Amino acid sequence: MIINPTEIEHESMRIIQNIIGSRYNGPEENLPVIKRVIHATADFDFLDNLFFSDNVITKTHEALRLRHERVIITDTLMLKSGISKNYGINIICHVNDEETHSEAKSRGLTRAIINIERCVKEFPEAIYAIGNSPTALIRLCELIHEGKAKPALVIGVPVGFVNVIESKELLLSLSDIPRIISRGNKGGSPVACAIVNAILYAMA
Amino acid sequence: MIINPTEIEHESMRIIQNIIGSRYNGPEENLPVIKRVIHATADFDFLDNLFFSDNVITKTHEALRLRHERVIITDTLMLKSGISKNYGINIICHVNDEETHSEAKSRGLTRAIINIERCVKEFPEAIYAIGNSPTALIRLCELIHEGKAKPALVIGVPVGFVNVIESKELLLSLSDIPRIISRGNKGGSPVACAIVNAILYAMA
Repeated sequence: MIINPTEIEHESMRIIQNIIGSRYNGPEENLPVIKRVIHATADFDFLDNLFFSDNVITKTHEALRLRHERVIITDTLMLKSGISKNYGINIICHVNDEETHSEAKSRGLTRAIINIERCVKEFPEAIYAIGNSPTALIRLCELIHEGKAKPALVIGVPVGFVNVIESKELLLSLSDIPRIISRGNKGGSPVACAIVNAILYAMA
Repeated sequence: MIINPTEIEHESMRIIQNIIGSRYNGPEENLPVIKRVIHATADFDFLDNLFFSDNVITKTHEALRLRHERVIITDTLMLKSGISKNYGINIICHVNDEETHSEAKSRGLTRAIINIERCVKEFPEAIYAIGNSPTALIRLCELIHEGKAKPALVIGVPVGFVNVIESKELLLSLSDIPRIISRGNKGGSPVACAIVNAILYAMA
């Protein structure tokens, strides 16, 4: 039995590549992201489900290299906890802050929405990774549309059955924004986490 | 647009129930668990993938009611962070403790394995939820086989391509232990989390 984590990962990626075989013929720079999502889910639907805007990986790497503030915003603490801490990037999620709780209560909105609003005020050009909350993604798209946010990248991969497809269609329509989207109902925090980490690993 | 989280959940469950329709004819007590896993993944493969030992939900509820120590052990902090905190249950994961780091280094083993060994020493009869690490699940099965652990429930749903199916087959063979398993390669922390939370919600 292989128990060394690095060896397990290499062997997993080899198995995934074998199964993908010649089924993938998109841009080379997107393939490590697709493979890492399949690694996290064992679900080969993501070979067909994932949308990447043009040169999104190259553009994201440039943004991370050039910008003074290297910030990734997440919609959940679960996603924040899974992102690699080895790249000196500030990972921010205000969803459980006291301020967010009280503002959500007073305005009758979800904490997911308030988290996005607060983060956009602080970091309008950050990378936004949304793996869970379609209402957070919809609010972010509205703020982009109003010119209040211009993210370096939006990862829009909420999972579920209510508002999910609508939120992704909204993001799909924002053609000026670098974006990665899981079309349909599937997605989730591990999918968002795999996408972020694959992008970071490919910077090295 | 529905934005109330409770309404979103009800509507999601209604959509999932509609899609399942008459396809499910197993025990009634397992259905809320299956539906919550599909809710977390949007993946209807789990309608067929999930194995439940006999009366596992009833037995787990009894264990949680009768036992002095109500403890759930997790293999990752991500899983720990997702489990409901509303039931007065102690959720424990030692994977990132300093002691675990140093013991893993000195013995040349994964932190996932050391976490399980330390938790079994402290809480041999707890609920064990493993959503990520097949090596942790294999070690737990060995400790059960040696009579050193007798969990109230083992949730064995690691995801991936290396050691994963083997670890689940090992757990499947331990017929004295209440257990829930996602057969095949699929699973993950959100699946484990959905199973735990569905069991807790059904206690109310």
